Amino acid sequence: MKEANGGVTAPGGFRAASAAAGIRYTGRDDMAMIVSDAPCHAAGVFTSNVVCAAPVRWDRRIVRESASREQVRCVVVNAGIANACTGQDGLDACEKTAEAAAAALGLSRDQVLLASTGVIGSPLPVDKVTAGVRMLAEQLSDSPEASEAASKAIMTTDTVRKEIAAACEIGGKTVTIGAISKGVGMIEPNMCTMLCFVTTDAAISCDMLDKALRYAVRDSYNMISVDGDMSTNDTLVILANGRAGNPEITGEGADYDTFAQTLRELLIMQAQKHAADGEGATALIEAHVVHADTDENARLLAKSVINSMLTKAAVFGHDANGGRILCALGYSGASFDPDQVDLTALGEAGEVVMYRAGAKVDYDEEFATQVLSGKKVTLLCDMHAGDAQARAWGCDLSYDYVKINADYRS
Amino acid sequence: MKEANGGVTAPGGFRAASAAAGIRYTGRDDMAMIVSDAPCHAAGVFTSNVVCAAPVRWDRRIVRESASREQVRCVVVNAGIANACTGQDGLDACEKTAEAAAAALGLSRDQVLLASTGVIGSPLPVDKVTAGVRMLAEQLSDSPEASEAASKAIMTTDTVRKEIAAACEIGGKTVTIGAISKGVGMIEPNMCTMLCFVTTDAAISCDMLDKALRYAVRDSYNMISVDGDMSTNDTLVILANGRAGNPEITGEGADYDTFAQTLRELLIMQAQKHAADGEGATALIEAHVVHADTDENARLLAKSVINSMLTKAAVFGHDANGGRILCALGYSGASFDPDQVDLTALGEAGEVVMYRAGAKVDYDEEFATQVLSGKKVTLLCDMHAGDAQARAWGCDLSYDYVKINADYRS
Repeated sequence: MKEANGGVTAPGGFRAASAAAGIRYTGRDDMAMIVSDAPCHAAGVFTSNVVCAAPVRWDRRIVRESASREQVRCVVVNAGIANACTGQDGLDACEKTAEAAAAALGLSRDQVLLASTGVIGSPLPVDKVTAGVRMLAEQLSDSPEASEAASKAIMTTDTVRKEIAAACEIGGKTVTIGAISKGVGMIEPNMCTMLCFVTTDAAISCDMLDKALRYAVRDSYNMISVDGDMSTNDTLVILANGRAGNPEITGEGADYDTFAQTLRELLIMQAQKHAADGEGATALIEAHVVHADTDENARLLAKSVINSMLTKAAVFGHDANGGRILCALGYSGASFDPDQVDLTALGEAGEVVMYRAGAKVDYDEEFATQVLSGKKVTLLCDMHAGDAQARAWGCDLSYDYVKINADYRS
Repeated sequence: MKEANGGVTAPGGFRAASAAAGIRYTGRDDMAMIVSDAPCHAAGVFTSNVVCAAPVRWDRRIVRESASREQVRCVVVNAGIANACTGQDGLDACEKTAEAAAAALGLSRDQVLLASTGVIGSPLPVDKVTAGVRMLAEQLSDSPEASEAASKAIMTTDTVRKEIAAACEIGGKTVTIGAISKGVGMIEPNMCTMLCFVTTDAAISCDMLDKALRYAVRDSYNMISVDGDMSTNDTLVILANGRAGNPEITGEGADYDTFAQTLRELLIMQAQKHAADGEGATALIEAHVVHADTDENARLLAKSVINSMLTKAAVFGHDANGGRILCALGYSGASFDPDQVDLTALGEAGEVVMYRAGAKVDYDEEFATQVLSGKKVTLLCDMHAGDAQARAWGCDLSYDYVKINADYRS
C-alpha cells in the first residue's frame, strides 16, 4: 500500500468542513461534513447492538436500498451527543438534520448520511445542529486542512486525530482512498467500531464496494477492542464517486483485488490507531496468533487475549505474565492442546520467550519488563496446530481508563 | 434457609486445619485441609478453561469415577501457587501431595482431593507442600475456629474470608451444610468460580448430590463475575458423609428439593461475597432482569450488564449512566425491543427510575448519585417481554483493580 497525504479530501471531488455548533462542547468544533461533488455509491457497516442510535437506523435504510445507495452526496457528523435511546424524537432529529443539509446543498434528504457520537440518552438540540449544518455547507473545501479540521471536530475522548490516505493504480488510473475516524472507548471487535468515514474516487459498483468493505473490516475494525463494550452508534461508511476515471469495477478480478487490498491495509492501519489511543492506554497490544488449526479459532484466540482485563493490566504493569495470556487463550472458546503453545513477547527492547510447549521458560525478568515497556507490545501465540493466523489489537488497562469512565458525564 | 454458625466443620463428622507451609507467603497460613471421619459421596464442578491446572485434572478424575467418588475423605488446599501450566511436573506434584495426605491419615491417595490457587506457571515446591500436609494432619479439629482458620489460609487477594453454614430438616433429621471459599479476581460466570469447598452431613447418593450441586451452581457461582477472566483453577467440590442419619436421598422428591434449595440459597449468598469482595471493588452490583422472554435471555442480559466495563466504571463514579446499561443489554446476544425497557437503580438511599420505555427519564442527578453511592447497587432491568427473570452479581471497576493486577507478581 502506498500512503498518500491527507484524508477524506485526498480523493478527487470531495470537500469537507468543520464547525462549532455548541452542541455539548464549548471552544471547539463539534460538527463535520463531507460532501462529494458527484453522486456516490455508498456502503456501510453498523453496530449489531440491539440498542442502536437513530442516525444508525437512518443510514442503514439508505445504504440498503438500491435507489438511495447510488446517489449519496453528503455525510453530517456531530460529537457530544449520541442521539441514542432517544425514541421518536431522535428519529425526527435525524430527519430535520438531513433536510437542513439537503436544503443547504441542493440535494434530496436521502442523499445525506448521518452519524452521532457522545452521551447516550440526551436529546439532540435540533436548532443548534441545523444551524451547524448551514455553517458547514458554507465552509466546504477540498484542502487537506479541511479534512484535518473534520477529523478533529468528530473527536470525543480521543487524544489524537485519526486520518489516513492511500493510492493505488487501477486500469491505468490513480485511485485514492481517504478516511477519518474517531472512537477510543465503548469499543468491541464484533462490528465496525465507532465512526469511520472513507472516501474514494474509485469507480466501483455498489455491490463490489460493499463486498470490499466487508472484506476489509473483517481484519481491521472487527479485530480491535478497547473495553469489550459494543457501542450503540458504530458506523463505518464508504463513499465512491468514480472521479478517478478507472473502468468501473463490477466484478471480481485484478482491479477489485487491488482496490480491496488497498482498502484492507488502509483500514488495518487506521483501526490500530483507535486501539493505541484507547481510553487511558499507555501501550498498543497486538495479539498475533500463528499456526492455529482454523481461521475462526485464530480470530477467537487473538480477540480473547486483547480482551482479557488481567492481560491488559499486566501490560500496564510491564509484567511478562504469560500465565494470564495462556489463561485467556484457554477460555476463548477455541479448543487446542495447551501443552503445545509457545508464547513470546516482542517490544522495542527485543523479544522474550515466556512459555514453550505450555510450560514457563526461565527468562530474565528485568529484560522482560523492558520488552513490555514500549508503546507497542506484541504477544505472539504459536499454537503449533495448523496454518491459520490472525492479529487483533487492544490496549492496556490503566488508572486513567477508570478515571475517564467514572467521570465521563460529570 | 436457616443460617447456622460456622463453616465446613458445622456438619457432623468433619474436621479442618490450617498451616503455614511457606509456599509463597510468609507470616501467614497458606494451606488448609478438610477431613471427613467417614467416606463421603463427592461431586464437583470445575473450570471449563482449556488450560486447566494439575489439581483440577486430579479432582475431575476422582469425582467422575464411581469407585472413587463414593470414598472421598480429604481435601488439601494451598494458596500462593496455582500449579497451572506446569506440565508433567505439576501432575507429579499432585500425586506426591495426595500420597503425603494419604500416608498421614491412613487413606488411599484417591480419597484425597486437591486444589491450588495463586500464580500460574511457577512450580509447586513439593517438599514444602508435603511437609505442610503432615502439619495439617496433626492439627485437625471439628471446632468452628478450625473452619475459620482454613477459610483464612486459602485467601489470596481476598480482603475478607468467606464462610457460611445452613441447616434444614430432612426425614426428621437436621441436615447441615457448610462452606468456605475464596477468589475475587480472574472470575467469570461460565463455571463455578475459584475455590469453594462444601461439606454436608446429609445422606445422599452421588448422582443426586451431583444433580443438586449443578442446580445450585447455575444460579449462584455461574452468575457472578469480577473481570470476565475464567480461571485455570476454578473448583467447587461438595462432600456428603451421611452422618445426619436422614433416609438417603436417592431420587427426586420433597427431601431432594429441601436439600437442593438449601444448597442453592447457601451458594447464592456465598457467591455474592466473592463479587462484593472483587479486586478493588467498592460496591456490589446486582443486575436483576425481570419480565424477559426466556430464562436464557434473562441470564444473558443480567451477565452482560455486570460484565460491562463502562457500567462498572460508572458505578465506581456513582454515575446513574443508564445509557451504558441499555447498551450492555443491547450487545448481550439476547434480542428484545429497546423501546420497552425500564431501568431502575436501587441503593441504600432509595431508588431512581433512569429509563422508561427505552427513553431517559428526567430524574434528580444529585439523588441518583446518592442511590449509587452505597455498598450495594441493584440495577433493575424490566424488559416487558415475558415472565423470565435472572440475577447476576459483579462489582465496580476501581483504580485499585488496576493497581492489584498491574503489580500482582512483583
